[in-house]
Amino acid sequence: MFSEILQRIVEQTSGGVGAVLMGYDGIAIDQFFAPDEEIDLQMIVVEYSNVLKEIRKTTEILSLGEMEEISIRTDRFIIVIRMLNEEYFVALVINHDGNFGKGRYLMTREGFNLIEELS
Amino acid sequence: MFSEILQRIVEQTSGGVGAVLMGYDGIAIDQFFAPDEEIDLQMIVVEYSNVLKEIRKTTEILSLGEMEEISIRTDRFIIVIRMLNEEYFVALVINHDGNFGKGRYLMTREGFNLIEELS
Repeated sequence: MFSEILQRIVEQTSGGVGAVLMGYDGIAIDQFFAPDEEIDLQMIVVEYSNVLKEIRKTTEILSLGEMEEISIRTDRFIIVIRMLNEEYFVALVINHDGNFGKGRYLMTREGFNLIEELS
Repeated sequence: MFSEILQRIVEQTSGGVGAVLMGYDGIAIDQFFAPDEEIDLQMIVVEYSNVLKEIRKTTEILSLGEMEEISIRTDRFIIVIRMLNEEYFVALVINHDGNFGKGRYLMTREGFNLIEELS
Protein backbone atom coordinates (compact mmCIF):
# COMPACT_ATOMS: atom_id res chain seq x y z
CA MET A 1 0.00 0.00 0.00
CA PHE A 2 1.21 3.51 -0.88
CA SER A 3 0.33 5.07 2.48
CA GLU A 4 2.33 2.46 4.40
CA ILE A 5 5.41 3.19 2.30
CA LEU A 6 4.93 6.95 2.79
CA GLN A 7 4.48 6.40 6.53
CA ARG A 8 7.76 4.47 6.69
CA ILE A 9 9.59 7.31 4.94
CA VAL A 10 8.15 9.96 7.32
CA GLU A 11 8.51 8.00 10.56
CA GLN A 12 12.03 6.77 9.88
CA THR A 13 13.29 10.25 8.95
CA SER A 14 14.13 12.26 12.05
CA GLY A 15 12.16 15.51 11.72
CA GLY A 16 9.86 14.02 9.06
CA VAL A 17 6.63 16.01 8.70
CA GLY A 18 4.80 14.34 5.83
CA ALA A 19 5.09 12.70 2.43
CA VAL A 20 2.91 12.78 -0.69
CA LEU A 21 2.80 10.58 -3.79
CA MET A 22 1.67 12.81 -6.63
CA GLY A 23 1.29 13.11 -10.39
CA TYR A 24 2.85 15.92 -12.41
CA ASP A 25 -0.73 17.05 -12.98
CA GLY A 26 -0.82 18.04 -9.28
CA ILE A 27 -3.25 15.30 -8.23
CA ALA A 28 -2.22 13.41 -5.10
CA ILE A 29 -2.53 9.61 -5.08
CA ASP A 30 -1.79 9.17 -1.40
CA GLN A 31 -0.17 10.95 1.54
CA PHE A 32 0.92 10.53 5.12
CA PHE A 33 1.32 13.21 7.81
CA ALA A 34 3.04 12.92 11.14
CA PRO A 35 0.49 13.54 13.94
CA ASP A 36 0.12 17.15 15.15
CA GLU A 37 1.59 18.60 11.97
CA GLU A 38 -0.46 21.54 10.78
CA ILE A 39 1.40 22.26 7.58
CA ASP A 40 -0.72 22.07 4.40
CA LEU A 41 1.54 19.57 2.68
CA GLN A 42 -0.76 18.96 -0.24
CA MET A 43 -0.97 22.66 -1.11
CA ILE A 44 2.80 22.93 -0.91
CA VAL A 45 3.35 20.04 -3.26
CA VAL A 46 0.69 21.19 -5.73
CA GLU A 47 2.41 24.59 -5.91
CA TYR A 48 5.83 23.04 -6.35
CA SER A 49 4.63 20.58 -8.98
CA ASN A 50 4.32 23.54 -11.38
CA VAL A 51 7.88 24.61 -10.64
CA LEU A 52 8.94 20.99 -11.05
CA LYS A 53 7.65 20.97 -14.61
CA GLU A 54 9.75 24.07 -15.32
CA ILE A 55 12.87 22.49 -13.83
CA ARG A 56 12.31 19.32 -15.87
CA LYS A 57 11.90 21.33 -19.04
CA THR A 58 15.04 23.36 -18.34
CA THR A 59 17.01 20.21 -17.56
CA GLU A 60 15.84 18.68 -20.83
CA ILE A 61 16.71 21.77 -22.88
CA LEU A 62 20.20 21.81 -21.36
CA SER A 63 20.76 18.06 -21.95
CA LEU A 64 21.75 17.64 -18.32
CA GLY A 65 20.46 14.09 -18.11
CA GLU A 66 17.41 12.47 -16.55
CA MET A 67 16.04 14.32 -13.48
CA GLU A 68 16.29 12.25 -10.31
CA GLU A 69 15.83 14.48 -7.30
CA ILE A 70 15.29 18.07 -6.22
CA SER A 71 15.65 19.46 -2.73
CA ILE A 72 14.62 22.88 -1.52
CA ARG A 73 15.87 24.10 1.84
CA THR A 74 14.43 27.09 3.68
CA ASP A 75 15.12 28.27 7.24
CA ARG A 76 12.03 26.29 8.32
CA PHE A 77 11.82 23.17 6.15
CA ILE A 78 13.58 20.86 3.74
CA ILE A 79 11.49 19.56 0.84
CA VAL A 80 12.89 16.55 -1.03
CA ILE A 81 11.22 15.59 -4.31
CA ARG A 82 12.12 12.33 -6.03
CA MET A 83 11.00 11.49 -9.55
CA LEU A 84 9.53 7.99 -9.87
CA ASN A 85 8.64 7.82 -13.57
CA GLU A 86 7.25 9.97 -16.37
CA GLU A 87 4.01 10.53 -14.48
CA TYR A 88 4.64 10.46 -10.75
CA PHE A 89 6.91 11.81 -8.03
CA VAL A 90 7.12 11.56 -4.25
CA ALA A 91 7.75 14.54 -1.96
CA LEU A 92 8.94 14.53 1.65
CA VAL A 93 8.85 17.52 4.00
CA ILE A 94 11.37 17.52 6.86
CA ASN A 95 11.87 20.09 9.62
CA HIS A 96 14.94 22.27 9.05
CA ASP A 97 16.92 20.47 11.76
CA GLY A 98 15.80 17.00 10.63
CA ASN A 99 17.92 14.32 8.98
CA PHE A 100 18.19 15.27 5.30
CA GLY A 101 20.60 12.43 4.46
CA LYS A 102 18.37 9.78 5.99
CA GLY A 103 15.33 11.23 4.21
CA ARG A 104 17.13 11.09 0.85
CA TYR A 105 18.25 7.52 1.50
CA LEU A 106 14.72 6.41 2.39
CA MET A 107 13.24 8.18 -0.65
CA THR A 108 15.66 6.28 -2.87
CA ARG A 109 15.04 2.92 -1.19
CA GLU A 110 11.27 3.25 -0.90
CA GLY A 111 11.07 4.87 -4.33
CA PHE A 112 11.67 1.47 -5.87
CA ASN A 113 8.79 0.04 -3.82
CA LEU A 114 6.49 2.87 -4.92
CA ILE A 115 7.41 2.32 -8.58
CA GLU A 116 6.64 -1.38 -8.17
CA GLU A 117 3.23 -0.62 -6.62
CA LEU A 118 2.46 1.90 -9.39
CA SER A 119 3.08 -0.57 -12.20
CA MET B 1 38.63 37.73 -4.69
CA PHE B 2 35.47 36.00 -5.88
CA SER B 3 37.22 33.70 -8.33
CA GLU B 4 39.59 32.38 -5.65
CA ILE B 5 36.68 31.50 -3.39
CA LEU B 6 34.87 29.79 -6.30
CA GLN B 7 38.06 27.90 -7.17
CA ARG B 8 38.34 26.65 -3.56
CA ILE B 9 34.76 25.36 -3.67
CA VAL B 10 35.28 23.53 -6.99
CA GLU B 11 38.72 22.10 -6.25
CA GLN B 12 37.90 20.91 -2.74
CA THR B 13 34.70 19.17 -3.86
CA SER B 14 35.44 15.75 -5.29
CA GLY B 15 33.81 15.72 -8.74
CA GLY B 16 33.52 19.52 -8.80
CA VAL B 17 33.03 20.84 -12.34
CA GLY B 18 32.55 24.57 -11.89
CA ALA B 19 31.02 27.34 -9.79
CA VAL B 20 29.36 30.65 -10.67
CA LEU B 21 28.51 33.70 -8.58
CA MET B 22 25.44 35.24 -10.16
CA GLY B 23 22.65 37.77 -9.72
CA TYR B 24 18.97 36.83 -9.93
CA ASP B 25 18.96 38.91 -13.11
CA GLY B 26 21.05 36.13 -14.70
CA ILE B 27 24.26 38.18 -14.95
CA ALA B 28 27.38 36.38 -13.72
CA ILE B 29 29.82 38.26 -11.50
CA ASP B 30 32.53 35.64 -11.57
CA GLN B 31 33.06 31.93 -12.25
CA PHE B 32 35.57 29.15 -12.05
CA PHE B 33 35.73 25.95 -14.13
CA ALA B 34 37.80 22.85 -13.53
CA PRO B 35 40.23 22.34 -16.45
CA ASP B 36 38.98 20.18 -19.33
CA GLU B 37 35.34 20.65 -18.44
CA GLU B 38 33.30 21.37 -21.53
CA ILE B 39 29.96 21.98 -19.88
CA ASP B 40 28.44 25.42 -20.52
CA LEU B 41 28.04 26.27 -16.86
CA GLN B 42 27.01 29.84 -17.43
CA MET B 43 24.17 28.87 -19.77
CA ILE B 44 22.97 26.29 -17.25
CA VAL B 45 22.91 28.78 -14.43
CA VAL B 46 21.24 31.48 -16.50
CA GLU B 47 18.47 29.02 -17.42
CA TYR B 48 18.04 27.89 -13.83
CA SER B 49 18.04 31.44 -12.48
CA ASN B 50 14.58 31.83 -14.04
CA VAL B 51 13.34 28.70 -12.34
CA LEU B 52 14.95 29.94 -9.13
CA LYS B 53 12.79 33.05 -9.21
CA GLU B 54 9.71 30.81 -9.54
CA ILE B 55 10.78 28.65 -6.60
CA ARG B 56 11.42 31.74 -4.47
CA LYS B 57 8.01 33.15 -5.31
CA THR B 58 6.30 29.84 -4.52
CA THR B 59 8.20 29.53 -1.24
CA GLU B 60 7.14 33.06 -0.31
CA ILE B 61 3.47 32.46 -1.19
CA LEU B 62 3.46 29.32 0.93
CA SER B 63 5.18 31.05 3.91
CA LEU B 64 7.76 28.27 4.04
CA GLY B 65 10.51 30.54 5.36
CA GLU B 66 13.57 32.13 3.82
CA MET B 67 15.09 30.16 0.89
CA GLU B 68 18.59 28.90 1.66
CA GLU B 69 19.52 26.22 -0.84
CA ILE B 70 18.26 24.23 -3.82
CA SER B 71 19.83 21.14 -5.28
CA ILE B 72 18.93 19.45 -8.54
CA ARG B 73 20.21 15.96 -9.23
CA THR B 74 20.15 14.30 -12.64
CA ASP B 75 21.76 11.05 -13.75
CA ARG B 76 24.74 13.14 -14.98
CA PHE B 77 25.15 16.08 -12.59
CA ILE B 78 24.30 17.59 -9.23
CA ILE B 79 23.65 21.34 -9.23
CA VAL B 80 23.72 23.03 -5.82
CA ILE B 81 22.45 26.61 -5.61
CA ARG B 82 22.93 28.64 -2.44
CA MET B 83 21.24 31.99 -1.85
CA LEU B 84 23.62 34.66 -0.57
CA ASN B 85 21.34 37.67 -0.21
CA GLU B 86 18.41 39.37 -1.93
CA GLU B 87 20.43 39.88 -5.10
CA TYR B 88 23.00 37.13 -5.50
CA PHE B 89 23.41 33.36 -5.38
CA VAL B 90 26.23 30.92 -5.98
CA ALA B 91 25.87 27.70 -8.01
CA LEU B 92 28.11 24.65 -8.00
CA VAL B 93 28.00 21.84 -10.57
CA ILE B 94 29.30 18.43 -9.44
CA ASN B 95 29.54 15.20 -11.40
CA HIS B 96 26.84 12.69 -10.44
CA ASP B 97 29.27 10.52 -8.48
CA GLY B 98 30.97 13.51 -6.79
CA ASN B 99 30.77 14.47 -3.12
CA PHE B 100 27.43 16.25 -2.67
CA GLY B 101 27.85 16.58 1.12
CA LYS B 102 31.27 18.16 0.84
CA GLY B 103 30.01 20.53 -1.85
CA ARG B 104 27.12 21.65 0.35
CA TYR B 105 29.44 22.15 3.30
CA LEU B 106 31.87 24.25 1.24
CA MET B 107 29.04 26.34 -0.25
CA THR B 108 27.85 27.14 3.29
CA ARG B 109 31.34 27.95 4.60
CA GLU B 110 32.52 29.93 1.58
CA GLY B 111 29.08 31.53 1.22
CA PHE B 112 29.89 33.69 4.24
CA ASN B 113 33.14 34.79 2.57
CA LEU B 114 31.31 35.64 -0.65
CA ILE B 115 28.71 37.68 1.26
CA GLU B 116 31.52 39.56 2.98
CA GLU B 117 33.24 40.30 -0.35
CA LEU B 118 29.92 41.44 -1.85
CA SER B 119 29.20 44.00 0.87
